[in-house]
Amino acid sequence: MVKAVQWKEDCVRILDQSRLPHEVTYIDCTDYLMVAETIKTLKIRGAPAIGIAAAMGLARTAQDIEASSYEDFVKALKPVMDTLLQTRPTAVNIKWAMQRMTRLLQKNRDETVERLKELLIEEAKAILEEDIEVNRAIGVWGAQFIRDGDTVLTHCNAGALATGGYGTATAPILVALEQGKKVRVIADETRPVLQGARLTAWELMQAGVDVTVITDNSAGALMRRGEIDLCIVGTDRTVRNGDVANKIGTYMVAVLAKENGLPFYVAAPLSSIDFSIPSGEMIPIEERSEEEVTHISGKQITPDGVKVINLAFDVTPARYVTAIITEKGAFRPKDIKKLASEGINLEELRIKA
Amino acid sequence: MVKAVQWKEDCVRILDQSRLPHEVTYIDCTDYLMVAETIKTLKIRGAPAIGIAAAMGLARTAQDIEASSYEDFVKALKPVMDTLLQTRPTAVNIKWAMQRMTRLLQKNRDETVERLKELLIEEAKAILEEDIEVNRAIGVWGAQFIRDGDTVLTHCNAGALATGGYGTATAPILVALEQGKKVRVIADETRPVLQGARLTAWELMQAGVDVTVITDNSAGALMRRGEIDLCIVGTDRTVRNGDVANKIGTYMVAVLAKENGLPFYVAAPLSSIDFSIPSGEMIPIEERSEEEVTHISGKQITPDGVKVINLAFDVTPARYVTAIITEKGAFRPKDIKKLASEGINLEELRIKA
Repeated sequence: MVKAVQWKEDCVRILDQSRLPHEVTYIDCTDYLMVAETIKTLKIRGAPAIGIAAAMGLARTAQDIEASSYEDFVKALKPVMDTLLQTRPTAVNIKWAMQRMTRLLQKNRDETVERLKELLIEEAKAILEEDIEVNRAIGVWGAQFIRDGDTVLTHCNAGALATGGYGTATAPILVALEQGKKVRVIADETRPVLQGARLTAWELMQAGVDVTVITDNSAGALMRRGEIDLCIVGTDRTVRNGDVANKIGTYMVAVLAKENGLPFYVAAPLSSIDFSIPSGEMIPIEERSEEEVTHISGKQITPDGVKVINLAFDVTPARYVTAIITEKGAFRPKDIKKLASEGINLEELRIKA
Repeated sequence: MVKAVQWKEDCVRILDQSRLPHEVTYIDCTDYLMVAETIKTLKIRGAPAIGIAAAMGLARTAQDIEASSYEDFVKALKPVMDTLLQTRPTAVNIKWAMQRMTRLLQKNRDETVERLKELLIEEAKAILEEDIEVNRAIGVWGAQFIRDGDTVLTHCNAGALATGGYGTATAPILVALEQGKKVRVIADETRPVLQGARLTAWELMQAGVDVTVITDNSAGALMRRGEIDLCIVGTDRTVRNGDVANKIGTYMVAVLAKENGLPFYVAAPLSSIDFSIPSGEMIPIEERSEEEVTHISGKQITPDGVKVINLAFDVTPARYVTAIITEKGAFRPKDIKKLASEGINLEELRIKA
């Protein structure tokens, strides 16, 4: 399985995703500034992956700080955290990782600076390991929905490259393969940024998975021809009523799946579920640069001055979603809100294949 | 309105669509070989447009033939027709144009060679004029479904560039604009070959139409946001039961329209309706080169050796189609088969806005 980010003895090793799939290049970041640069320039992307990278960047630079007291140490780390936080201001995972590191320091304020440095490394590694564990658990709960011989359609990249490992949408596929099932994947190319064609196809080929790339326009025709058995996608944010925000085009896949009687699954770590938002109608949808549509690989495809609408995400209403697969089990979208309550019986809520 | 092909005093003037939208270049074809080359290399495309170009290429070269008898003249034209027919062997419109020219010659075998030359020019011009008339009639029947202020989604290019003028899917829009309605167009970019982004956007801008390009992935989200009022697409082949074959992705647009309660219209000249095929299931679907998916503007976007499926067309079942708009009126898909019968009352079958 490919690794988007790794802790090495003297650096944070980041796979340069901006050069994929044509070149496999690693950037050995020896300090937080190098890590910040890779995040800012999208050499590493995917919410979990950049959270892990930021934590590791902090831990890496912490090793080089000379401080004689807890206060001096924390003071020296402050601008490091600020820089990492500013790389992608809306990325909740970086914020979450920095808060976790801060809490760790506060809890261990009586330790020596040398011990704190060790603890930061351990915590950064733990963030990576926990992410892999969460994704593998999603994989185990999700694999039950994949039968031997199935073909899975996925959209965008919610794979190992976006996470510490396994990916979210790809985890059920990888676990099904581990279980000895024969599984084929069809990857939507995912215009405008082509994460499916560039990243999902590449990482699944690296993992030895049988993967086929199609234009986003082809998903419906292939469903009608019976060439797709189920769909699994990731999510940027799933909300209280089970509505799912994900890469533009996800809604289209969901509608086509429903129309063709195919199950549509969303792989969602609990950290991506926002229980504070009641409905998908209330999720703000980012509009991104026109150039993502007008230019491909630096070449302009459209007439000069044409108008463009470029929505980064769309919202798939809960009624199109067969199940939301989390690390705690697969649930009906309408039951997702119950996961926010104490003392629920998960086993009763879980849905089975 | 842009002109894909024009008859000039001493040449057939063809707009080089392979350079659009970046360069507007015309190729002045002084003989049939030049015309054949533009068809073969897709500098002109679209079923009606290449039929017109072939007829004009024949008429153009006929002027230079020195023959003293009808037999000598026809004999000299034979290799010209063969060459034009071989440019795109499956293009029914070229075959149809050559048959029409042959019938004209046979009917006028008693005329002088000089008169036959004139008749060929007149017939080629008539083929162009009749195509424009058919499309304008589609436009008039279709414009009733466009209300003042509407936004129309279209897919691929079924515009003036693909025809003698007006286009098929674009004709109702252009006529609605002539009628003083305010109309906005959203053009799917239409991967893999991007005819929407490159051609539809360009020709509508030339005609002064308010046009916005989106990725194919965005159509559903915009429908859900209420930003689209109706869809109009063209067709490569519509069959007896009202099923519609058209550019890959058309089925997706139709399903999304149905799901969002929006009308979905197909603009289809009667010549594109194949009454001999009972159902869309029986339309063979061409698979095209993988390179159309793996490369954009000559640059590879996918990993080396990845599998690709590239279907040129898909079939939209009649149940998704609100109406099929022909030059004789707009009809329910289930009524299309009646158009093949003699003595039907068109007025009774026509549907109104």
